[in-house]
Amino acid sequence: MYYPEPISKLIDSFMKLPGIGPKTAVRLAFFVLNMKEDVVLDFAKALVNAKRNLTYCSSCGHITDKDPCYICQDDKRDRSIICVVQDPKDVIAMEKMKEYNGLYHVLHGAISPMEGIGPEDIKIAELFRRLQDETVQEVILATNPNIEGEATAMYISRLLKPTGVKITRIAHGLPVGGDLEYADEVTLSKALEGRREL
Amino acid sequence: MYYPEPISKLIDSFMKLPGIGPKTAVRLAFFVLNMKEDVVLDFAKALVNAKRNLTYCSSCGHITDKDPCYICQDDKRDRSIICVVQDPKDVIAMEKMKEYNGLYHVLHGAISPMEGIGPEDIKIAELFRRLQDETVQEVILATNPNIEGEATAMYISRLLKPTGVKITRIAHGLPVGGDLEYADEVTLSKALEGRREL
Repeated sequence: MYYPEPISKLIDSFMKLPGIGPKTAVRLAFFVLNMKEDVVLDFAKALVNAKRNLTYCSSCGHITDKDPCYICQDDKRDRSIICVVQDPKDVIAMEKMKEYNGLYHVLHGAISPMEGIGPEDIKIAELFRRLQDETVQEVILATNPNIEGEATAMYISRLLKPTGVKITRIAHGLPVGGDLEYADEVTLSKALEGRREL
Repeated sequence: MYYPEPISKLIDSFMKLPGIGPKTAVRLAFFVLNMKEDVVLDFAKALVNAKRNLTYCSSCGHITDKDPCYICQDDKRDRSIICVVQDPKDVIAMEKMKEYNGLYHVLHGAISPMEGIGPEDIKIAELFRRLQDETVQEVILATNPNIEGEATAMYISRLLKPTGVKITRIAHGLPVGGDLEYADEVTLSKALEGRREL
């Protein structure tokens, strides 16, 4: 017992977080000791509130403190487009862009045979159900541009084809601010393949 | 407002910790959402308990949940030696070694004119007082081997000289497992200076 119990418990808690090892946990715990009491109390409250008051939207699957979420509730949103993403963080990334005005559908994962995640483990059935209830004209597949994301996009596009809804995939190409010299071959070939007339 | 309020508050709290920027804070906050509720509650409790129940030992200045601390209370400890360190974490480092059986004195800093920290800003007066009350025969100066630590050690040794107590400084030299080839000149010169007959 090197540390008094209250601090060793705090160190243990910090160590449960990703990317935080024993040394960082000790540093953070000692930092907390020197923080103002009300700041620490706010931190503790924020932890409990985030865990207790947040849930997933029953319609789109985005994290929210009220159900349905503020995006699904918003009347100004275009309800004819659904953008399919893997994760709530992807919704945030799309929203920060401020250019998309449709709805979302969060899959909460991607098909990955390597990790034993099949189509039934992510929220594909829920997406299918939404298409039957709502008047959706376009589904934008915005899963990640990697093997799992591509496989998931391919799977969903085949599944939805018979419904007649327009299915699109976000573009692959060179990132803005990137450098042609350092682009990998696959990205470059996708960028060439997706070239457009000016 | 991209994030629901409970999670944005949690992100803000994480960002107050050292070395945690916006992206890491988001990652940690989302990780918390997927943790079990009782683990999150334990975390929140640990934060509040560490802040509320920990104090500094009125004798040695080490962090503790009871005063005096478990080291100062321990009857098996050799009360004739005091090891002076800068920080409670240094006490832990010494204790992990399991070879030192004396008492400690935590200065809570080091003299640093650059940062405007003078002798009166750290707990040197308290050390002086302890030497008069208790039957101390040796003071080991174990401040850090850098400019501030050396200056502090030098200051304390001059201050305590008239009391007649034995004052020692921990050795400088090559760290065990280190490589002579990569040692800096100052360390190497200290290692040579402190050489001992075998």
